[in-house]
Amino acid sequence: MLEELRAAVCAANRRLPALGLAPLNFGNASGIDRASSVVAIKPSGVDYASLRPEDIVLVDLQGKVVAGGLKPSTDTPTHVSLYRSFPSIGGIVHTHSPAATSFAQAARPIPALGTTHADYFNGPVPVTRELTDEEIARNYEEATGTVLKEALNGADPLSLPAALAVHHGPFIWGGTVDQAVENACALEFVADCALRTLALAPAMREMPVVLRQKHFLRKHGPSAYYGQKRAH
Amino acid sequence: MLEELRAAVCAANRRLPALGLAPLNFGNASGIDRASSVVAIKPSGVDYASLRPEDIVLVDLQGKVVAGGLKPSTDTPTHVSLYRSFPSIGGIVHTHSPAATSFAQAARPIPALGTTHADYFNGPVPVTRELTDEEIARNYEEATGTVLKEALNGADPLSLPAALAVHHGPFIWGGTVDQAVENACALEFVADCALRTLALAPAMREMPVVLRQKHFLRKHGPSAYYGQKRAH
Amino acid sequence: MLEELRAAVCAANRRLPALGLAPLNFGNASGIDRASSVVAIKPSGVDYASLRPEDIVLVDLQGKVVAGGLKPSTDTPTHVSLYRSFPSIGGIVHTHSPAATSFAQAARPIPALGTTHADYFNGPVPVTRELTDEEIARNYEEATGTVLKEALNGADPLSLPAALAVHHGPFIWGGTVDQAVENACALEFVADCALRTLALAPAMREMPVVLRQKHFLRKHGPSAYYGQKRAH
Amino acid sequence: MLEELRAAVCAANRRLPALGLAPLNFGNASGIDRASSVVAIKPSGVDYASLRPEDIVLVDLQGKVVAGGLKPSTDTPTHVSLYRSFPSIGGIVHTHSPAATSFAQAARPIPALGTTHADYFNGPVPVTRELTDEEIARNYEEATGTVLKEALNGADPLSLPAALAVHHGPFIWGGTVDQAVENACALEFVADCALRTLALAPAMREMPVVLRQKHFLRKHGPSAYYGQKRAH
Repeated sequence: MLEELRAAVCAANRRLPALGLAPLNFGNASGIDRASSVVAIKPSGVDYASLRPEDIVLVDLQGKVVAGGLKPSTDTPTHVSLYRSFPSIGGIVHTHSPAATSFAQAARPIPALGTTHADYFNGPVPVTRELTDEEIARNYEEATGTVLKEALNGADPLSLPAALAVHHGPFIWGGTVDQAVENACALEFVADCALRTLALAPAMREMPVVLRQKHFLRKHGPSAYYGQKRAH
Repeated sequence: MLEELRAAVCAANRRLPALGLAPLNFGNASGIDRASSVVAIKPSGVDYASLRPEDIVLVDLQGKVVAGGLKPSTDTPTHVSLYRSFPSIGGIVHTHSPAATSFAQAARPIPALGTTHADYFNGPVPVTRELTDEEIARNYEEATGTVLKEALNGADPLSLPAALAVHHGPFIWGGTVDQAVENACALEFVADCALRTLALAPAMREMPVVLRQKHFLRKHGPSAYYGQKRAH
Repeated sequence: MLEELRAAVCAANRRLPALGLAPLNFGNASGIDRASSVVAIKPSGVDYASLRPEDIVLVDLQGKVVAGGLKPSTDTPTHVSLYRSFPSIGGIVHTHSPAATSFAQAARPIPALGTTHADYFNGPVPVTRELTDEEIARNYEEATGTVLKEALNGADPLSLPAALAVHHGPFIWGGTVDQAVENACALEFVADCALRTLALAPAMREMPVVLRQKHFLRKHGPSAYYGQKRAH
Repeated sequence: MLEELRAAVCAANRRLPALGLAPLNFGNASGIDRASSVVAIKPSGVDYASLRPEDIVLVDLQGKVVAGGLKPSTDTPTHVSLYRSFPSIGGIVHTHSPAATSFAQAARPIPALGTTHADYFNGPVPVTRELTDEEIARNYEEATGTVLKEALNGADPLSLPAALAVHHGPFIWGGTVDQAVENACALEFVADCALRTLALAPAMREMPVVLRQKHFLRKHGPSAYYGQKRAH
């Protein structure tokens, strides 16, 4: 099970550059085995191209290494904080993808402006509050996880699978690490469209909520009717 | 004949990602055999890469499946509505291409700002009105077809082969599915240029109508003089 | 000689899509043999990929076909008008490259904002006046050549090797068709940078003239010192 | 040693087009052997594709050729000026990468708007003052080096490894020529994000200094904790 998780996390990390989500080799993906509460995460500062499943570091929910010879990503405390906060998620991706990062740097949420957004995110993608100087000094990466949770403001993390760390960039999650990667692609696309939409219509705020719900729910949840029927 | 149509529709769908028109695998293409009133359309939620002609679903003009083992695209009611509204068209493409989608999200028509636009669209590309909450709840996809037709406001659909579903994205058509794909490429290009033109000249509205007509008619219609003489 | 010219013009046309200068297959390149006053130009509406040297049409300075079995580009009257107006040029390219086209659609010249511009264009790239309705109706393509010449306002066409046809797009020239292609690449790049510069500094007009001259003249003209010494 | 330096400088120059940093073949990279005070630099006007290590020109700290049969880059006086000004740097890259060039053309520094910036540049990337007419006429390239040094205003060049020559483009440096290339990639990425951030939040100036220092210092300097432990 853990070896399968390591392989999936390795593959997810290696897809990030190919998807244009890992400029400057920034970014990392992780996955969790909920049965054992073990998180598999990218090692810090290792090139994607040379990443092998055995390089993936295993840590517990406090971020302590339980297997692997390399140091885990510096963002590990953020990942484990999110896994503790959101028991329903199974994978997390952090990127510096340019359009989503620009919203984070502008300290603006990504408004839900169209059905592409609504197909993945059932509401605006929030941006965190500023960290205090003390949070930055004392436990920066863990505090980032805390404010990401706060930013979600009680929303279902699988209906709103991303938030922006202010001045930093997006964290994206999903039921599995593969879904997190797909959501990360979607986030960058909707952020790019939102940038252009706001250039054309600076006062535009949100699409009608009824239309947003319609699109999210025709693709997700018990009455979804998008795609082929899954085998049982 | 229907097998040829299925092959053409399959090939048209498979070209969408290569042309950059199908971000996130969104988008679908269809074609119609007017003699039998049978529409061939992409199945819902199937990857473009694995799409084979036999996967293409055949439906009638009410959207009822007449052949094929897969569920048709969720947008099928929109396609068949447009085929009923516009008897001269033979193919339809729906995309979420980013620049055209941004105009749809901004609830703005794409103004005819230059000859590139005029070579394909003899007028601004309109945007639909908002759907009512009842239309969204009751028959969302079919109502989308209705408002697209309304948006054309009686124009010849082959002279104005696209419209934008507000908050959603473009629908594009043509005499054949291949022409619809070409028009979809043109739409994204002119939307992208229009975005940049409006950044440079926010007050710019429309090019001179005489110049627009000149370009459209030198390429289309009985007195066209662009290209090589076709064999008879 | 004419066969060499045809080969060079064919190769130049075929480079346009690879350089990203021919969206939608728009665009054409021509060259002239000044000794015989014969112009070699792309045939109308023929795909770049299938273009062979023998497809290149030969016309005289009035645009009359002197050799070749295909119709020449619809823009031929513009090309031959420019060759008559500017005796020092040997090649012309017309593109709808997106950033330069956006300036044409905005009816704005491309200001000389930096040394990249100055390395190729010793001044702002002008935009033509509007054509009159009568010019559009009677001799549209030739009148385009006339207003392009007017736009240069007596400048040396080899120091200012491009102008924008308003609502349409750029025409670019050079000593040879290959230099015209290089100048077309440079024009698109400087137009793209100018768009972004104007977004950052909307009031920015022109770089200092002394710096512009310095860069143009260190690369062109008798006292140029850029590159390796040419053999004599 | 000098042959190794030539090979490294050749490879660095050849990477520039692949990284999208050398539009129009503009740009050059150099490295220095501090023991002998010999600088290895790209020859002027030679295509990247055909560049071989033996083409790399060796010059002294005054820009005088000490080995190599080709003329060095016209920007050589700028490079050697920077090597004299900043004894801690080992490599320099000059590009016309589009987003960074747009800030230079807009005469605006690149503000430190997010952690991506802070991971490479511990402060805003400054822009030089205008050159005087006399500086342009008499010793343009060397004066460019002088104003780049002035722009740094005493900052540690390894903490602020870039500056923008106004109306021109960026110069980027680092401990080695390879680090200079990496910093040049980072500069273009953060400039592109800054452009989009300023479109979303025109009044945005700088990220909190505490956060900027946190990110720069977790990756650089004695208490860095990013990446794997280096062998000693």
